[in-house]
Amino acid sequence: MTYCVGILVRDGLVMIADTRTNAGVDNIATFRKLHLFEIPGERVITLATAGNLSVSQSVMSLLSDGIEDPVTGELETLLSVSSMFKAAQLVGRAVRQVYEMDGAEMEKHRTGFDVTILLGGQIGQGPMRLYQVYSAGNAIEATQDTPFLQIGEPKYGKPILDRAISHETELIEALKLGLISMDSTLKSNLGVGLPIDIVMAKRNALKAGITYRIQEDEPYFRDLRERWSAALRAAHQAIPHPPYVEEAL
Amino acid sequence: MTYCVGILVRDGLVMIADTRTNAGVDNIATFRKLHLFEIPGERVITLATAGNLSVSQSVMSLLSDGIEDPVTGELETLLSVSSMFKAAQLVGRAVRQVYEMDGAEMEKHRTGFDVTILLGGQIGQGPMRLYQVYSAGNAIEATQDTPFLQIGEPKYGKPILDRAISHETELIEALKLGLISMDSTLKSNLGVGLPIDIVMAKRNALKAGITYRIQEDEPYFRDLRERWSAALRAAHQAIPHPPYVEEAL
Repeated sequence: MTYCVGILVRDGLVMIADTRTNAGVDNIATFRKLHLFEIPGERVITLATAGNLSVSQSVMSLLSDGIEDPVTGELETLLSVSSMFKAAQLVGRAVRQVYEMDGAEMEKHRTGFDVTILLGGQIGQGPMRLYQVYSAGNAIEATQDTPFLQIGEPKYGKPILDRAISHETELIEALKLGLISMDSTLKSNLGVGLPIDIVMAKRNALKAGITYRIQEDEPYFRDLRERWSAALRAAHQAIPHPPYVEEAL
Repeated sequence: MTYCVGILVRDGLVMIADTRTNAGVDNIATFRKLHLFEIPGERVITLATAGNLSVSQSVMSLLSDGIEDPVTGELETLLSVSSMFKAAQLVGRAVRQVYEMDGAEMEKHRTGFDVTILLGGQIGQGPMRLYQVYSAGNAIEATQDTPFLQIGEPKYGKPILDRAISHETELIEALKLGLISMDSTLKSNLGVGLPIDIVMAKRNALKAGITYRIQEDEPYFRDLRERWSAALRAAHQAIPHPPYVEEAL
């Protein structure tokens, strides 16, 4: 399993991903799922991957080596495409090429061809965008109504995002909320694990303001988890008792 | 979909269930999923059901009409069994009878035989217990280490329970936490809906202290939802910024 979340707010983009992969619960390993393609001052693009590791690694390799443009015949990479929409199409083409390469054989061995990719960033004067690319190579885009996208195991970490994230949320709060959402998932799903990778980019900065890895036992993240648990306990205790219960106790 | 949660703490038992059933998203209805079998002063037993509605209704009918004891030949019901363990076995036998009746035909029509039941309560001087009975009729039991069980859609409502529920949690707090857990699920899963039914029973009271239905727009539940959302927003804002971000902003 995997948990990655991308949050696109007014002031910028946060992307957070865990690093645990597992082939069964008795075979776990650590692989980076969050990737950065950056030409500071010109573009910042970050990708997070979920699904079959061989598929997502092949997609990343194709995106680094380049994919031939079907019209011009030129090699395109995430460092050469001219817009985020074209970047999403390029990622989709990479997914489809891997499917052509490996999909049929994988299905013979009952291994589902399964990959989902978050793609966020900004190129030049274009808008900052956040996409989710599916196994079929098609994509959806985050909007002001729904400013976050999740891949992998989304459910445990969704309630806090549903309640607290809006387009107007400050970028630093979006980062903290993403970490809280990750914490909820870590607690409940053994297939999601530390270290946690973070990329944060301010809108129009055209560079990653933060690229950071939270290791096991990092004091700030441990403190955030403890404060959050304590705050939740205080919050439910502060809610009045239901009126229909008072007389029954 | 469905969401039901049972919480067994030192001072008693809380069971909470939604009432929405759906056959596809375009066919929803309201059915009670939380049931009470009670002889005040002698026993209090409550059941919550998830899964295929025809299966769970048939199980409930068998439990009311009675099932023949395989040894004595006598009809047994939840009002006649002598312990909670025997109650769990009786529910398991009911599930197996329905499977014998309908299982094969349902599978012909590609309708999975799918039912899960929470069963909690206390009989006479016996211990208060909380079980989860599966489609195969087997059961697990809540313990002091894991004092809550969930059926239906468990994931959205699990993080708050994981963080806040222990065997020592006060009964009234367990109720509030169950309602918060239900709220998180209502927000994220359209297959879970109001009204919400509640049964609460103090240990050794041998009766239901509360049987209550939360209707749409009930002021206390609306207030709880708003207070909880506000508390979460305050809580994440009160967490300090990550040290690695301060310089980047």
